[in-house]
Amino acid sequence: MNSPSCTLDGIRAARARIGPHIHRTPVLSSRTLDDLASARLFFKCENFQRAGVFKARGAYNAVFGLTEAEAGLGVATHSSGNHGAALALAARTRGIPACIVVPKNALRGKIENIRRYGGRIEFCEPTLADREATLARVQGQTGARPVHPFNDPFVIAGQGTAALELMEDHPTLDAIFAPVGGGGLLSGTAVAAKGLKPGIRVFGAEPAGADDAARSLREGKLIAQTNPQTIADGLRTSLGSLTFPLIRRYAEDIITVSDSATIEAMRLVWSVLKIVIEPSSAVAVAAVLQAAPSLKGQCVGVILSGGNAELEHLPWAAGGTAGSAQPEDFMKAAKDHLPAHGIDR
Amino acid sequence: MNSPSCTLDGIRAARARIGPHIHRTPVLSSRTLDDLASARLFFKCENFQRAGVFKARGAYNAVFGLTEAEAGLGVATHSSGNHGAALALAARTRGIPACIVVPKNALRGKIENIRRYGGRIEFCEPTLADREATLARVQGQTGARPVHPFNDPFVIAGQGTAALELMEDHPTLDAIFAPVGGGGLLSGTAVAAKGLKPGIRVFGAEPAGADDAARSLREGKLIAQTNPQTIADGLRTSLGSLTFPLIRRYAEDIITVSDSATIEAMRLVWSVLKIVIEPSSAVAVAAVLQAAPSLKGQCVGVILSGGNAELEHLPWAAGGTAGSAQPEDFMKAAKDHLPAHGIDR
Repeated sequence: MNSPSCTLDGIRAARARIGPHIHRTPVLSSRTLDDLASARLFFKCENFQRAGVFKARGAYNAVFGLTEAEAGLGVATHSSGNHGAALALAARTRGIPACIVVPKNALRGKIENIRRYGGRIEFCEPTLADREATLARVQGQTGARPVHPFNDPFVIAGQGTAALELMEDHPTLDAIFAPVGGGGLLSGTAVAAKGLKPGIRVFGAEPAGADDAARSLREGKLIAQTNPQTIADGLRTSLGSLTFPLIRRYAEDIITVSDSATIEAMRLVWSVLKIVIEPSSAVAVAAVLQAAPSLKGQCVGVILSGGNAELEHLPWAAGGTAGSAQPEDFMKAAKDHLPAHGIDR
Repeated sequence: MNSPSCTLDGIRAARARIGPHIHRTPVLSSRTLDDLASARLFFKCENFQRAGVFKARGAYNAVFGLTEAEAGLGVATHSSGNHGAALALAARTRGIPACIVVPKNALRGKIENIRRYGGRIEFCEPTLADREATLARVQGQTGARPVHPFNDPFVIAGQGTAALELMEDHPTLDAIFAPVGGGGLLSGTAVAAKGLKPGIRVFGAEPAGADDAARSLREGKLIAQTNPQTIADGLRTSLGSLTFPLIRRYAEDIITVSDSATIEAMRLVWSVLKIVIEPSSAVAVAAVLQAAPSLKGQCVGVILSGGNAELEHLPWAAGGTAGSAQPEDFMKAAKDHLPAHGIDR
């Protein structure tokens, strides 16, 4: 927990290390969404990050934080998603090998992303036990450094650079929202934001169907997520031993949202901001709208974590809603979810 | 044709007039797409423009170009789409009335956009004759100034400001692509680009199923579009008496693309650039990829005209393609459309 990486200085060091390799992503805002929330919203667009996701930040920090000797042996991880692709990309940039352990049943698109970035794929059975055994075997054979998707000080510090940039661009923020799965992004965000501005309020946004972070915070101990049920595939993980204490110390609260609120928020962002975000990002937007009564008139930062949505399977298309998405439709939907005083325009 | 508005000076005047009211939209680029085209591509993101479309530029220039006396009587147009919403928004900004004549069968979403921006709607039968008769009646009753969606010097000059900004940001452009329907955007783009840099090549991008601009240029006379067949709903119109001569004089060529190439290009932009563009914008991207052999190593500007896509009716979802869109898939699809030497990586 007290790794020197997981401090504001550690995050600043991360930024210096990864700055030449990643994008300083833009911050978008919209009068329509401001009116909807009765607040000023600033969206940090990590969907425009390399590999389409904030995870490039942590992966680059881990890879470029290795000594020459360590780097020569390469890196490895197990991941069926964004972290594996981001680590492969970071390793290719440094010119070192990356081996990604992937469950046999992973989506073809995710596997191709890893391959496109030059990662070597090692398939395993789709169980945690076999993932870990396969990773241990790879590590034994190659000496590669394992890079955990979130429970790693360099990864946490790397993820914190998104909030660092956002607060440099908008120092007036009163609150900041980030989605929480394993907690790498939220803990990095919290360390950066509280370090720069102790009075800021930091909120995690979590699917109600995978609410281990909310329960862990409430109980004061790490509770593992079993059987997560949510469309937000990036947020099904449990917190880790490094991320939980940081979140407990620095985050104000975890706000849980229903999948239907997440889907509405995703459609709203696509139709108003004209950008593609994945469900995990929409969880943060849904949480802001749900918490709007307590944010009235404030400046609120929102980390849109990634844009790797499956374009062939849009959640609202399945619902068969006719016509274009309109902010008014969302207002109605949002009002159904919210207390009557939820949103004033 | 020789209106002082339709010159580089006219476009600069338009920019001064509308600058305080519209967005200076960002320019995006992507290594993946550069590799695909073997060129450096610069995407001018008018999907982020006010009202979600470049048409705000022309509408603001028309509305803010009126004298006080003219403005007091308001503006009117017939439109079932983006121009009506943009004109309503511009009129509201100046605080003057806007009446939009809309066919009874227009999409609900489009009608709500006009209403949201404060436009008064006058319904008509879905025929050109009744649209024009209804507009004439409105004009007779109110004295409102009619603002044509493209065949108007102030509208053309306003649309040209997108290319002006793009070339200020990237003066090294060798070529520039814009979609062509009525020709307001393409003629404004051509006047701006050739005025700033006479050696630049300006290309129009047109659906093969609504290729009146390509035929008009080939025949040397204005040929009207009858029975257009294309998914690009913004590009079904014929050129106008003002836009055709400008395009004939300044544009290098019109490139026609199939709807299937447009759909592939739209999916590619959504999945790689992580932005929402409408089919009419994707026509320009498809044209660039089709013309890639003649653009090798060049700097190419592309005007992404708008982002008002219908999120419930994605064209590729109907095709039932499984899995995520991958640039490799597109490569394959593009190669099917292209000569064998079409794309080198």
